[in-house]
Amino acid sequence: MKVNGFSFSAVKAGVRYPDRLDIGLIYCDHSCVTAGVLTTSQVQAAPVVIDEERLKNGQTQAILVNSGCANACTGIKGMEIAQATSRLMSNALNISDDLVLLSSTGVIGEQLNLQAFETNCDALADGLAPDKFEQVARAIMTTDTVMKTAKTTLTIDGRDVEIVGMAKGAGMIMPNMATMLSFVLTDADIHVDALQELLTEGVERTFNRITVDGDTSTNDMVLVMASGAAKNLTIEKSRLSDFQAFKEGLTVVLKDLALQIVRDGEGATKTITVKVSGAKSDEDAEKIARTIANSSLVKTAFFGEDANWGRILAAMGRSGVLFSPDLVDVYFDDVCIAKNGLAVGASAEEAATGVLKEKEFTLSVDLKNGTCSQEMYTCDFSLDYVRINADYRS
Amino acid sequence: MKVNGFSFSAVKAGVRYPDRLDIGLIYCDHSCVTAGVLTTSQVQAAPVVIDEERLKNGQTQAILVNSGCANACTGIKGMEIAQATSRLMSNALNISDDLVLLSSTGVIGEQLNLQAFETNCDALADGLAPDKFEQVARAIMTTDTVMKTAKTTLTIDGRDVEIVGMAKGAGMIMPNMATMLSFVLTDADIHVDALQELLTEGVERTFNRITVDGDTSTNDMVLVMASGAAKNLTIEKSRLSDFQAFKEGLTVVLKDLALQIVRDGEGATKTITVKVSGAKSDEDAEKIARTIANSSLVKTAFFGEDANWGRILAAMGRSGVLFSPDLVDVYFDDVCIAKNGLAVGASAEEAATGVLKEKEFTLSVDLKNGTCSQEMYTCDFSLDYVRINADYRS
Repeated sequence: MKVNGFSFSAVKAGVRYPDRLDIGLIYCDHSCVTAGVLTTSQVQAAPVVIDEERLKNGQTQAILVNSGCANACTGIKGMEIAQATSRLMSNALNISDDLVLLSSTGVIGEQLNLQAFETNCDALADGLAPDKFEQVARAIMTTDTVMKTAKTTLTIDGRDVEIVGMAKGAGMIMPNMATMLSFVLTDADIHVDALQELLTEGVERTFNRITVDGDTSTNDMVLVMASGAAKNLTIEKSRLSDFQAFKEGLTVVLKDLALQIVRDGEGATKTITVKVSGAKSDEDAEKIARTIANSSLVKTAFFGEDANWGRILAAMGRSGVLFSPDLVDVYFDDVCIAKNGLAVGASAEEAATGVLKEKEFTLSVDLKNGTCSQEMYTCDFSLDYVRINADYRS
Repeated sequence: MKVNGFSFSAVKAGVRYPDRLDIGLIYCDHSCVTAGVLTTSQVQAAPVVIDEERLKNGQTQAILVNSGCANACTGIKGMEIAQATSRLMSNALNISDDLVLLSSTGVIGEQLNLQAFETNCDALADGLAPDKFEQVARAIMTTDTVMKTAKTTLTIDGRDVEIVGMAKGAGMIMPNMATMLSFVLTDADIHVDALQELLTEGVERTFNRITVDGDTSTNDMVLVMASGAAKNLTIEKSRLSDFQAFKEGLTVVLKDLALQIVRDGEGATKTITVKVSGAKSDEDAEKIARTIANSSLVKTAFFGEDANWGRILAAMGRSGVLFSPDLVDVYFDDVCIAKNGLAVGASAEEAATGVLKEKEFTLSVDLKNGTCSQEMYTCDFSLDYVRINADYRS
């Protein structure tokens, strides 16, 4: 995967584990338009604090990312180490320090191994090449079992525009170890305000709609850099058709990456779209979808391939949303298992159990109380989720 | 266990499974003062709907309870069956129908087996005896592995007053299969307003502070009946010392029962008190304690005996409460593992790991941001939790 204007590099630096790619560098050949969405957690990792400040300029040139250590809950020392890594990298690249964004994922509460950066920042700069996108995508993996990348091509202003993205994350997803990271790159020419607005909106409908375990990380971030190399007329909100076209393309890439994270959820054996329709408001629909998608009892029933719609109604009941249980229809794919709040019967249950044996299916709930609908994307809750998270770190 | 004024009965009625006690009856020798706290779920089981109405009178005489079926998500037919069970029981007892409270626990979305009641209500009435408290406590068990009872004795107005209680519940606790039920009986003479106020307050600090899996049931209820047989001067709020004495006694019984539910949490191997202090408000303290106590990542780390305080800080960060991570101290029992938001070091981690090997311990978090503190009671999240809930029903 390539995209005009960007080059990539990754090294085996031994941040925590030997012999694996664990520091990556994404670099634009010039200072470029950048937008970001950072964790909403009150506990923010050092790189998040630094990026929040640097993103205010809307212009950056490089992303330096490591796995193995989150640099979260590391205090002043952690902040000093983060700043030192930034200086090492900006020196090696010969660019201004505030053009470097930082990103870390891994164990919380341990100090980042600065020596790994002292030894490797020059090699990272020297190794930059346009065709090493996948190396960086590998370097950011932690409990991920597969690399996650996505790509789309659009036409804007008569020009081909590409959007490519990478992501990592498998636990602590309502984005464990610590993190959901995603980096999206485009050669589009786009105004920074438009890019930030489309990213914020897009993340709300994609990354913010996935849940593995209801936990949010100290390090979550989605960053987008736009090189402008496609030489289209700058995308701005006032030119709506281009704005809309880019929005659709960006959403395709963000949703693709978000769904890859759910599919690779720690211990997950199934991916489930939870669709709530017939709600009075989008907010109500989302609240109910989120409560179902996060329920341990619903998710263990999915693992057990048990079409236990009673647990779904029970989760809905504690969502805080007012609705009438006597109107609710529940579907697994096309199979209606509950109609007007009541069991449809044994043959429907058998058919629904068949749906639950699939690796991907949709659970639809119709409240018949309005016209709004929203979706969440979740996975089942398996024995391996507990094994992975009881053993992690040790 | 006995308490003046009350008698008990239980039968093997085959509600769902053969050869186990599954319908119980609690009976007062006269119509007596009764208070209740019912599920806050929008999806309320038929018996909850009926009890809500009947509790308005503040006077009842009997509790008819079954396991094996929740009679939730059963529509009009479920309501008719519930009413029919009430009529069968009130006829057999020769009391007014609205003096019978109903309670059910078990699978959601299936109709209750009315024939089990038609065949057994007379036998229930005939079998009433003061010494069958434990039989009813057994009849309400579902995935519970142990019977849960508690007792305390007070002196009020120079009279011995007893408070006894039973509870069931192991999953769907933040009260799975469907339910936390508790029935508390006292021979105190107490005004209904005082009893309801003390119950509501007591439940808030006990049953509402336990969590196994963050799920709330359609059938949760705590009922208290007061026979007055102790012949003390009626307890009222205006006579504060008696009111306070009864409050303490009631809280002892409620907390004892609540903690028994956590200890018997589905798959639980450990019981953890989560104490948050140094908060600006009780509400902040409770929110943080609740978020930690419900975090799948924190609970799997407890199961793994991993003193992973980073996950604790991460959970706090998404609680919605503003606090300064740089001030936070984290203790496992007396071992401080993080001081001012930073790891204390390897020997503290070793000592903390020792604490986590215990079956019961306290996790304390000090925000150093105020004077308020609150507690939650939780259990670890084990492989067996997933096994139990993936297999249940099938």
